[in-house]
Amino acid sequence: MDTTLIRDYLHAWTPRVDARLDELLPSEDDEPRSVHAAMRYSVQAGGKRLRPALVLLGARAAGGDEASVLGVACAVELVHTYSLIHDDLPAMDDDDVRRGRASCHRRFGEAVAILAGDALNTFAFEVIAETAPQPETVGALVRELCRAAGTAGMVGGQVADLEAAEVAAARPDVATVRAIHERKTGALLTSSLRIGAIASGANETTLEALGAAGERLGLAFQIVDDVLDEEGLADELGKTPGKDRQQGKATYPAAIGIDASRAEALRLIAESREILTGRPASELLASLGAFVVERRS
Amino acid sequence: MDTTLIRDYLHAWTPRVDARLDELLPSEDDEPRSVHAAMRYSVQAGGKRLRPALVLLGARAAGGDEASVLGVACAVELVHTYSLIHDDLPAMDDDDVRRGRASCHRRFGEAVAILAGDALNTFAFEVIAETAPQPETVGALVRELCRAAGTAGMVGGQVADLEAAEVAAARPDVATVRAIHERKTGALLTSSLRIGAIASGANETTLEALGAAGERLGLAFQIVDDVLDEEGLADELGKTPGKDRQQGKATYPAAIGIDASRAEALRLIAESREILTGRPASELLASLGAFVVERRS
Repeated sequence: MDTTLIRDYLHAWTPRVDARLDELLPSEDDEPRSVHAAMRYSVQAGGKRLRPALVLLGARAAGGDEASVLGVACAVELVHTYSLIHDDLPAMDDDDVRRGRASCHRRFGEAVAILAGDALNTFAFEVIAETAPQPETVGALVRELCRAAGTAGMVGGQVADLEAAEVAAARPDVATVRAIHERKTGALLTSSLRIGAIASGANETTLEALGAAGERLGLAFQIVDDVLDEEGLADELGKTPGKDRQQGKATYPAAIGIDASRAEALRLIAESREILTGRPASELLASLGAFVVERRS
Repeated sequence: MDTTLIRDYLHAWTPRVDARLDELLPSEDDEPRSVHAAMRYSVQAGGKRLRPALVLLGARAAGGDEASVLGVACAVELVHTYSLIHDDLPAMDDDDVRRGRASCHRRFGEAVAILAGDALNTFAFEVIAETAPQPETVGALVRELCRAAGTAGMVGGQVADLEAAEVAAARPDVATVRAIHERKTGALLTSSLRIGAIASGANETTLEALGAAGERLGLAFQIVDDVLDEEGLADELGKTPGKDRQQGKATYPAAIGIDASRAEALRLIAESREILTGRPASELLASLGAFVVERRS
């Protein structure tokens, strides 16, 4: 499958997402400088901007346009970044490296990192309220993001991940791993597509299709993440490799091996392609699926 | 000044706030149980429910009714509770006791406490989106709450508080103390009144008056809090007394002494009463002011 289409798309849009994030984030010259600096440091550490891209593609899939949902796309990245900052804390995954540089608490101290995460979490909702192209969709956007980020989604996945690591099964059950991944990373990835569509006034049928495709894309993304961690490509990964195994994390490779994990990711991507066939932006989303499984970092 | 009016009001409404919080919060029987249990533990530890009461009074002041903004009132208490959980963490104020019992991280561990705080922060916005009596006010409510809770408000005050404690002046400047208090606790207290009014469709004149009165009430509340900490009434306070001084915190008594602090609180309350004279709910709010300065815990 060709990934040129999505590479060109990301090449065009990622700089615009980055520019909008820069505009939206509070200045480091304004108090509280330490927290504003930490927020900017972590948001601007880069990353693939996969979630914002999914928001933009969700808008396109619902017949909307990317430019009008750029702020909403940034809001999802703010939530993602807050979760990375808090997940890296010593009491959580205790990670010193993130996106290729010192994690937020290593750079700014724990107190500022906790507060920067809190502020990004709050700020995401402000950005939605300020930038949603159709004000009457704010309530639905907030509800969607909350469900994805809260205890039924991202937070629930993180605690299940920590608790699974505590029991540290040598070979975790694949159903357990899947349930963790679906919440820890899958929920926000899935919602990203839906959020772009909701902001563009999509109907329920479109939202359901995007949700079903997004679930598969999200899970495939996380499976590949596990595989990359297992294969341990330090420089390319931008975080401490082999950390999952070291911490006894429940991963796909630990459950079913690397080859079966890659096959499962491919299967999920094929399913998501099938669900979206004939819809707007289906080729772009198919190309994104290929990109997700072929990536090396 | 008579506090009977507000005592009767709180006696009538606090149980309804508590009941609504209980209804809204996720069940401890649902996964992730640990985080849900921690969320409930901290929210249900009690407290004065001053912020929800201000939301209800804000609705009344704008010609609305309390029952319709009960959910919105709970959302503000969720934000307040998340901030208490995170402020008590070892990397922050490192407090073992809160509202008369073990702080969240002492009871559930740091990881769960961080995640419970995060989840409450997110959940507050979901509750606003789900329960706002006039759906078209959701955007304005989210913006108001974000400004109060974010780096321009509560988070900004907390980091200024931590940083002021680091320089630990023996006699801090009163302007510095005031600036910290206005953000750390004042912003959310002020916004509570405004949020009740916004949810009830208040006009800008009403919102400005409530904002001006709320700023004074909020600052008076925090000054009295400082005085009570300084006087060290452990059992009544429900948290570790004398902690502020021990940590070199910038407080009003440290800046201007106990007597001048009490006088300043009384002056602020008188100003807030004057601002609201002739408006709906002005007697209740005057009684609340008296309650704030006369309280012993």
